Amino acid sequence: MGNELRAYSAATEPLIVNCLPLTDEERGEFIEAADGVRQIFVLDPAQRGRMQWPMRLPEGNRDEVTIIFGNPPGDQVADCQNLAWLQTLSAGVDAYLQPGLMPDGALLTSASGAYGQSVSEEMFAMMWALMKDLPAYRDNQNKGLWKPRGTVYSPRGAKALVLGTGDLGSSFARLVKAVGGTTYGIRRHPDKQVDGFDYMAGTDRLDQLLPDMDIVALALPASAATHHIISKERLALMKQNAVLVNAGRGDAVDCLALAETLEAGRILGAGLDVTEPEPLPADHPLWSQPRCLITPHVAGGAHLASNVDKIIEICLDNLRRYRAGQPLRNRVR
Amino acid sequence: MGNELRAYSAATEPLIVNCLPLTDEERGEFIEAADGVRQIFVLDPAQRGRMQWPMRLPEGNRDEVTIIFGNPPGDQVADCQNLAWLQTLSAGVDAYLQPGLMPDGALLTSASGAYGQSVSEEMFAMMWALMKDLPAYRDNQNKGLWKPRGTVYSPRGAKALVLGTGDLGSSFARLVKAVGGTTYGIRRHPDKQVDGFDYMAGTDRLDQLLPDMDIVALALPASAATHHIISKERLALMKQNAVLVNAGRGDAVDCLALAETLEAGRILGAGLDVTEPEPLPADHPLWSQPRCLITPHVAGGAHLASNVDKIIEICLDNLRRYRAGQPLRNRVR
Repeated sequence: MGNELRAYSAATEPLIVNCLPLTDEERGEFIEAADGVRQIFVLDPAQRGRMQWPMRLPEGNRDEVTIIFGNPPGDQVADCQNLAWLQTLSAGVDAYLQPGLMPDGALLTSASGAYGQSVSEEMFAMMWALMKDLPAYRDNQNKGLWKPRGTVYSPRGAKALVLGTGDLGSSFARLVKAVGGTTYGIRRHPDKQVDGFDYMAGTDRLDQLLPDMDIVALALPASAATHHIISKERLALMKQNAVLVNAGRGDAVDCLALAETLEAGRILGAGLDVTEPEPLPADHPLWSQPRCLITPHVAGGAHLASNVDKIIEICLDNLRRYRAGQPLRNRVR
Repeated sequence: MGNELRAYSAATEPLIVNCLPLTDEERGEFIEAADGVRQIFVLDPAQRGRMQWPMRLPEGNRDEVTIIFGNPPGDQVADCQNLAWLQTLSAGVDAYLQPGLMPDGALLTSASGAYGQSVSEEMFAMMWALMKDLPAYRDNQNKGLWKPRGTVYSPRGAKALVLGTGDLGSSFARLVKAVGGTTYGIRRHPDKQVDGFDYMAGTDRLDQLLPDMDIVALALPASAATHHIISKERLALMKQNAVLVNAGRGDAVDCLALAETLEAGRILGAGLDVTEPEPLPADHPLWSQPRCLITPHVAGGAHLASNVDKIIEICLDNLRRYRAGQPLRNRVR
């Protein structure tokens, strides 16, 4: 009986597993914010520039873990029977929402807000590249070919439709507005004004707006409602000189229909950081489509140094809030 | 004597040769602005989207030509012994400055101001592509390779140095500022403030500023003073993660030194719409340099539809001014 009690108390003495690649100075800030709670740091700053951080929870004392900063594999999280709070380093938390994976009552918070800049900038860079025909000029360069092609386009005076008006979509809209475009945001509840958008509309207005848009940008989270929202029929509604960019979730676009649309020259081009499926299979027709520009799901993550700074800021702020008993930012459950 | 007089008078009866690709409506505006002066239109609107307009002056009556809208070959202009005014459709007029090519006292005006948007946007698109590693991802795409690469960069919070603070440079600076960069303009007379620039400096400050810059953009006209202004030594002063873009004149950059610099990985990348020489020879090392993005001198010209609108606006405005005896815009001599 006495032994059982001691074991239980050892298991519930708080323990933080911190999977952030921190500098010594930043570690000091987390130690101070933890205010005496034990904290294991599993990464070093040398990992900072890497795209994927190894996030293995230490074995042996997983039942002691009460707080995690990181995205460890779900089965390792399931081992943490005394987990009180998981703060992910990602914006999406789908992997941890499965019933029974986390203990009842455990908190789940995301790093939403850390990726708006890098994802929106990737979409913006792709949009510019397509409007200025740069992928085709790059292909010509690789053939040693100095040959003017044809008409190029500008976002100045153009109309941009953005599906998804969260952090990513709103950041993209601000960029397009900054260079002279007009921005239309599509969301389920269009009555709410969102920064960066000149106009807001409900999803029911999508078919009506598409034929008038020069730029169509997708910054949607994964959900049943957005699966193939850009379908073959909607691609057919787009302007001949329109560009499509997607850096949200790959399945928002019917990628086979897109390949046909591009092959037929019915839109100007598409920039995809996400595809369906991922990775894009070797025999997928989009690979060889000259009007398509593909990057391998790199718009988010740690590729832009400032993303890491923002993730760390969210984690540290939430740790201080947790210790002070204040509501957490980005709480999902 | 009587015959000679008649011949002279016929030769000096004003005649405009108009090499603009005008719609019927625009032709009407030029006819109205010419106010009774004969006008030959040598192009049709179908040429509008083309990069290079054929600009041959009609033979047989070149000595009657008093006004030209266009960039005909210099030897054809030299045939126009009664030329009073040449309005080029280009921003540069070097080709017509050669002594004796135009009659003494003939006016020369350029289309400066028509290209700022398209040239600055091309530089901006190249800058984004290089900062987000898109040329390398395009090359990977052509190999069917789905593989994250590494760190990317952002103009937000970056420092951009622009050499040449005229229409092109100032338009580029405004774009960079709009997405969160800080802009430094280099010009011979830095006391004059120019729109789009946070700071101005003289050419003598170049070596001091270069090591601190994330973006170095060249929008310089051709001149002896700017030949190889970006030399091997100055390339060595640049930051390891800096990008260079040039859409002014090719010889502002020592292109062989640039190839070595890129090969050694000493800067992040270069985007060139202009090279030295042009076209870039088949065996030039820049062609196969993965960190270099090359377009074949297409940033200006008629590739962006709005450029043509602006050229026409300048020509029409100047024709009205000419007929009204008012000073012309963009007068070079």
